[in-house]
Amino acid sequence: MKTTIEHIRCLIIGSGPAGYTAAIYAARAGLQPVMYTGMNPGGQLTQTTEVENFPGYPTGVAGPEMMEDFLKQAQRFGTDVRFGYVSKVDFSNYPYQVIIDDVKTVVAESVIISTGASAKWLGLESEARYSGFGVSGCAVCDGYFFRGQNVALVGGGDTAAEEATYLSKLVNKVTMFVRKGELRASRSMINRVLNTPNIEVWYNTEVVEVLGDGTNVTALSVLNNKTREEMQVPVSGLFIAIGHQPNTEIFKGLLDMDETGYIKTVPGTTSTAIEGVFCCGDAQDPIYRQAITAAGTGCMAALDAERFLAAREASVPLQLPVI
Amino acid sequence: MKTTIEHIRCLIIGSGPAGYTAAIYAARAGLQPVMYTGMNPGGQLTQTTEVENFPGYPTGVAGPEMMEDFLKQAQRFGTDVRFGYVSKVDFSNYPYQVIIDDVKTVVAESVIISTGASAKWLGLESEARYSGFGVSGCAVCDGYFFRGQNVALVGGGDTAAEEATYLSKLVNKVTMFVRKGELRASRSMINRVLNTPNIEVWYNTEVVEVLGDGTNVTALSVLNNKTREEMQVPVSGLFIAIGHQPNTEIFKGLLDMDETGYIKTVPGTTSTAIEGVFCCGDAQDPIYRQAITAAGTGCMAALDAERFLAAREASVPLQLPVI
Repeated sequence: MKTTIEHIRCLIIGSGPAGYTAAIYAARAGLQPVMYTGMNPGGQLTQTTEVENFPGYPTGVAGPEMMEDFLKQAQRFGTDVRFGYVSKVDFSNYPYQVIIDDVKTVVAESVIISTGASAKWLGLESEARYSGFGVSGCAVCDGYFFRGQNVALVGGGDTAAEEATYLSKLVNKVTMFVRKGELRASRSMINRVLNTPNIEVWYNTEVVEVLGDGTNVTALSVLNNKTREEMQVPVSGLFIAIGHQPNTEIFKGLLDMDETGYIKTVPGTTSTAIEGVFCCGDAQDPIYRQAITAAGTGCMAALDAERFLAAREASVPLQLPVI
Repeated sequence: MKTTIEHIRCLIIGSGPAGYTAAIYAARAGLQPVMYTGMNPGGQLTQTTEVENFPGYPTGVAGPEMMEDFLKQAQRFGTDVRFGYVSKVDFSNYPYQVIIDDVKTVVAESVIISTGASAKWLGLESEARYSGFGVSGCAVCDGYFFRGQNVALVGGGDTAAEEATYLSKLVNKVTMFVRKGELRASRSMINRVLNTPNIEVWYNTEVVEVLGDGTNVTALSVLNNKTREEMQVPVSGLFIAIGHQPNTEIFKGLLDMDETGYIKTVPGTTSTAIEGVFCCGDAQDPIYRQAITAAGTGCMAALDAERFLAAREASVPLQLPVI
């Protein structure tokens, strides 16, 4: 028995800056892209208040508004943007089978993975309440807003050490709260932190509550997990640097990944180990993780997909699977 | 005798999307960047009419206007943007000596090269007159504007073959004018072109004039360089695909380059072979060459420079040169 299943030339999974940029380029190249947004259309930036560093917005823009612009631009050139999530992929036969919302099967001639990453948070109710109003997951994005002020940073790894150093050039003082009795960062990063006069490291400490005036962060409640003492530390910003988790669970075992789950691409391209499957944005970037770098790789993924399809169509007549 | 020379923490050379994005990020990181614009402030995009594919401009933007936005944004965070060109660099001692406008010496602790590339043109007066009004140097950028129309493309190499294939999916017909008696492209690209029904290849032909109605291109005068016959071919668009030249002349012998002059970077970063010298944008990208990919690498260069300076400042006290 034959069932007609939907046949997609270019499937884009995820709807952050990488996905939308891939969509703009794929649509303009005539690939008729279909995007499944995932459960959080617009991605991480929809949880951001002000974005000042994306070129093209000289006076800044609200994160959700920017993603609305990207969506409109992708749709303007004919991207079919659908709310839904990819629950399973099968890259074992070409074209690739993809399950949407656990129920619907589509086949895709090319796949662009732009599922992004999620910042890890402490999980405090007060942290969520002040997110974007003093609480941030990205020093490079938001450090500038705290120039000359006192801020805190939670984390003890390499990224935390790097973000603390970054912030130290901008703010008056960085207080680093480290849960353990030592930093987990590399020796050189630890030295850098300890040699920076305006970084103060508090070991064995945990932020247990974010305090504010209803609008902005004013202080933190901090617990010493050895002595069980609790004290208040006045700061105007709190940076959470306890890591990111790429949203790549459904690709596990199918694509090469590093130990955290970042998808490996051929450097300088967006190609994965599977032909016709491309990855862009934060799902493959543990280093820069900026909207503009994600957008750049989104463009690359669309052009890589276009070249892949052009080469394939010139050489192999497409076999549609029978299900 | 000691002369006080200007000391720059982060010098940015060139003012296209890569340079301005580097400037935005470097300024926000507190690196007090100084940019020398080069002789063509804003770069290649200032010669473009409409840009539709840069995410963040849902209804499109004129190239010069977009670069004006980028400039404002870079200046807003304190980038010192100066009209002038870098005439010579010396990377043999750190910090690096750089000559501006043949006369002024500055030293730079980090250098971001974003000098871009220049499209090669036929050199016809009529080609320049209709540039942006039917004449284009980039199929990926402008192909979409010619949907369903007849266009011509000049060139016979891999890029020309690739651009012709790209256009063939969008337009009614592509006529390829090849100066020699054969295509210089790889075997697989030649096959792809010859197997595409709506690409027609004319060998031994040269475009000698672009004809138009005063606003848009309407036809081309084409010379057969064997028979010396000349004929008119009606088209609404002409794509020039005879190559690009990266603007990297002053770095020759100092940095690793490919045979065309593209600067080599460590894949996945913007690092060159010289510590503290980073390269972004079209000066290092023979593949994608889009404003958004350039901007992405500009951000990377600024973050790479920030990390380089942070690491260096933590370990080595800076020695200022005596001149």
